Amino acid sequence: MEGEISMETVVATTKEELKQEIDCWRNAGETIGLVPTMGYLHEGHASLIRRARQECDRVMVSVFVNPTQFAPGEDLEAYPRDFERDRQLCRQLGVDLIFHPTPEVMYPQGFGTTIAMDQSMTGVLCGKTRPTHFQGVCTVVCKLFGLSHADRAYFGQKDAQQLAIVRKMNRDLDLGVTVVGCPIVREADGLAKSSRNVYLNPQERQAALVLSQAVKLGQEKVAQGETDADAIVSAMKEHIGKEPLARIDYVEAVDDIDLRPAHTVVSGTLFAMAVYIGKTRLIDNFITGGDAK
Amino acid sequence: MEGEISMETVVATTKEELKQEIDCWRNAGETIGLVPTMGYLHEGHASLIRRARQECDRVMVSVFVNPTQFAPGEDLEAYPRDFERDRQLCRQLGVDLIFHPTPEVMYPQGFGTTIAMDQSMTGVLCGKTRPTHFQGVCTVVCKLFGLSHADRAYFGQKDAQQLAIVRKMNRDLDLGVTVVGCPIVREADGLAKSSRNVYLNPQERQAALVLSQAVKLGQEKVAQGETDADAIVSAMKEHIGKEPLARIDYVEAVDDIDLRPAHTVVSGTLFAMAVYIGKTRLIDNFITGGDAK
Repeated sequence: MEGEISMETVVATTKEELKQEIDCWRNAGETIGLVPTMGYLHEGHASLIRRARQECDRVMVSVFVNPTQFAPGEDLEAYPRDFERDRQLCRQLGVDLIFHPTPEVMYPQGFGTTIAMDQSMTGVLCGKTRPTHFQGVCTVVCKLFGLSHADRAYFGQKDAQQLAIVRKMNRDLDLGVTVVGCPIVREADGLAKSSRNVYLNPQERQAALVLSQAVKLGQEKVAQGETDADAIVSAMKEHIGKEPLARIDYVEAVDDIDLRPAHTVVSGTLFAMAVYIGKTRLIDNFITGGDAK
Repeated sequence: MEGEISMETVVATTKEELKQEIDCWRNAGETIGLVPTMGYLHEGHASLIRRARQECDRVMVSVFVNPTQFAPGEDLEAYPRDFERDRQLCRQLGVDLIFHPTPEVMYPQGFGTTIAMDQSMTGVLCGKTRPTHFQGVCTVVCKLFGLSHADRAYFGQKDAQQLAIVRKMNRDLDLGVTVVGCPIVREADGLAKSSRNVYLNPQERQAALVLSQAVKLGQEKVAQGETDADAIVSAMKEHIGKEPLARIDYVEAVDDIDLRPAHTVVSGTLFAMAVYIGKTRLIDNFITGGDAK
């Protein structure tokens, strides 16, 4: 049994429990990697955790379905949760610490501070239909950065706008964390891994392939030398439009750093989309010139 | 000369220079005290620095007239500056490091993140006439917390609303800094020390005593057992109203933590005022049951 004790993944549900662990690491001069998640972990999360495990002395995963990034009518209550499974996966991946707080721990009575960012970053792409989403993301990520004292924090490129916004917040507010973006992880047939894929019925699951097909189509056009971003967007939209179960929220080309509209393809042009498959809203994207840095 | 080298106060004007110094301290496991200022240092600042010097291995003073906490028409350009004098004072007080950035260093092209707080904290007292002020304060303080990696940060109780708001931001965003409030330092005749006192002509300087006189009057009434906060406010206003050069912005009684209106005096009732003396806006206050914690 002794051998197993050191393999145990500690679960902290309060800030005090978390601090106790983090303080030990800091006093020992260990580097800390943070992987912020909403749980229901999949291979995408696992890739972030593995990267953190490689690069940091200690790895902390937060599992918290953050209410402030959901608007009324969105899927806060329905969002899939399975903490026991998450805990086992974290243990298998060698995670040192899971932070799994309640909403009341993160947002106690009287909470009243938020982080706002220019509309040019937060009012575009997903922000058009989710106007308060990224304010909620920024606020919780800032809190997690502070609580974890992370040296490095790992985010998936699948949420490309989130990654760009977190990078900007980190830079603007001098939070001092190294923000690491990691490539999209896909199912064998191309569908980007997402906790929300569980919402899809078999017919929708098939229809959802239009997103990754559109990504592939766009990438091929770029590879063929097409530099007209609008033409590529049109081709992607046309492809998605053929699927009766798909309803486009947006397909857009923007700069991957400042998210301003891109009409000509350069290195770092982000082609991003959100598409409803039935009632499920899925996102996918690619960045020209390589994956997220 | 060798003996003097270690007594030198380092001046960093860029984030890179700052980081180099801070990283050395962190690697050595030293505790860091931050005293954020807008320069033109006086005995009030000196008291914060002395406290930091007592409590921390390293002391960093920031000298930065933060443009984002001034509204158009306020005294950003006129705000008094004398960096050479500040530097000498810091050296005398054993400050290890002065951070003295330009606005461009703190807010480079494209900067676009701000910290907002509930109107119940930022829209009252000074926030009524300075609606964007505390957003600017929160943003720059958050940045200075991040850049300094401070364990402790020192603020004067003279800016009681600022102190309450910084405490709340620090708590809400889990910034992890110990925020220390320090008592108001006064001139021999009672006037609270302020960089803005330099604006007063001799006649105004004399008239400005109504603020500290009102504080004393309020404190006496509390000492006499008066528990009607509104009655105390009225008496303070009446006293200030007798001075022809004084124009009251506000005199109010609030809770010193959440800044909600207080009608009955309890421990932690903040009596705060802002009064124009000629064109100069001065503030003063007292908290029942002792100084800022």
